Amino acid sequence: MEIADKTERWVSLIKVNYPLVLSSGIEIIGKLAKFKPVIADFKIADIPYTSSLISKIAFENEAFAIICHGFAGSDTLKAVKGVAREYGGEVYVVTELSSPGGEEFLRKASNSIAELARKIGCDGIIAPGTRPDRVKELKEIAKGLKVICPGIGVQGGDIESLREVADYVIVGRSIYQAEDPEKEARKIYEILRG
Amino acid sequence: MEIADKTERWVSLIKVNYPLVLSSGIEIIGKLAKFKPVIADFKIADIPYTSSLISKIAFENEAFAIICHGFAGSDTLKAVKGVAREYGGEVYVVTELSSPGGEEFLRKASNSIAELARKIGCDGIIAPGTRPDRVKELKEIAKGLKVICPGIGVQGGDIESLREVADYVIVGRSIYQAEDPEKEARKIYEILRG
Repeated sequence: MEIADKTERWVSLIKVNYPLVLSSGIEIIGKLAKFKPVIADFKIADIPYTSSLISKIAFENEAFAIICHGFAGSDTLKAVKGVAREYGGEVYVVTELSSPGGEEFLRKASNSIAELARKIGCDGIIAPGTRPDRVKELKEIAKGLKVICPGIGVQGGDIESLREVADYVIVGRSIYQAEDPEKEARKIYEILRG
Repeated sequence: MEIADKTERWVSLIKVNYPLVLSSGIEIIGKLAKFKPVIADFKIADIPYTSSLISKIAFENEAFAIICHGFAGSDTLKAVKGVAREYGGEVYVVTELSSPGGEEFLRKASNSIAELARKIGCDGIIAPGTRPDRVKELKEIAKGLKVICPGIGVQGGDIESLREVADYVIVGRSIYQAEDPEKEARKIYEILRG
């Protein structure tokens, strides 16, 4: 909460993941949403029924958007998008993880996943900031969907190379592990603004 | 808690998923663990760092085992297995989801995922109870790993056809949505015992 308070001028959205939600309780989403819209990075990858329930809980707790895996299949994506629509929320679809393992199985499926995200009417894709060439290709396939790139900073992704191609970059550890999170957030903001 | 209390004689393990944990809090795992060992069905599919943190929280809260997606890549699986080892916990790896969407992307990767689960030293695989032929093939590839099958009951999986091949079947809704959960759990137990 302290970091959200200090950095809110320099960030567009706040992404929360399971480690935070599991240790703080789902109410943390509503609390953070007082600063900026919150993306629930739950990387949903379950059957449609369970995925719908997870999405419903996120949106009931004031999430603005949710992150879902495309590899779970089109039925799961459609179910999550259906719930999001009821709440006026958004859905972002993981194409490839930014970690090295993202190149094993996800790499082969990611172009099709980006296309599927577009066909189903999702709002954007998550593309690996650690692989700018892949981001460009996935952005072209996703035609018009927003592109969010994780993997910046600690994971090695270079922010400069993503400036033209990403709509948003996800920076977690570089900010919240910094001695001065506000200064770090502002620095990144200024690089992006160019 | 009431259902766990009523059915404990007829079940081997209790599987919890995110909808329950998000709405009841992570402490629900420890409470249910008083009845039977709990599998945290978190279908982890994140980068290794985040996946490790999720696993750590599950095991700290008395989970006996955790479910991870193989699709995320070998680095994620290794990270989760590493955390499990510290806690003496087990890791089960999803090969294919039991839902129709499991045949889209996961189907192409699932044989390799089963092999990977074995190589990394995970404890078992999750194989689709809705597709018994696939379960047989995946079990052969996973040589000796335990096989857990979801998709029984509401999703259409037939329990009889899995008796020889599955070590455990996951039955959720058929039990907890039954008018008499204990009777339903006992019925399934008796079918499995043969």
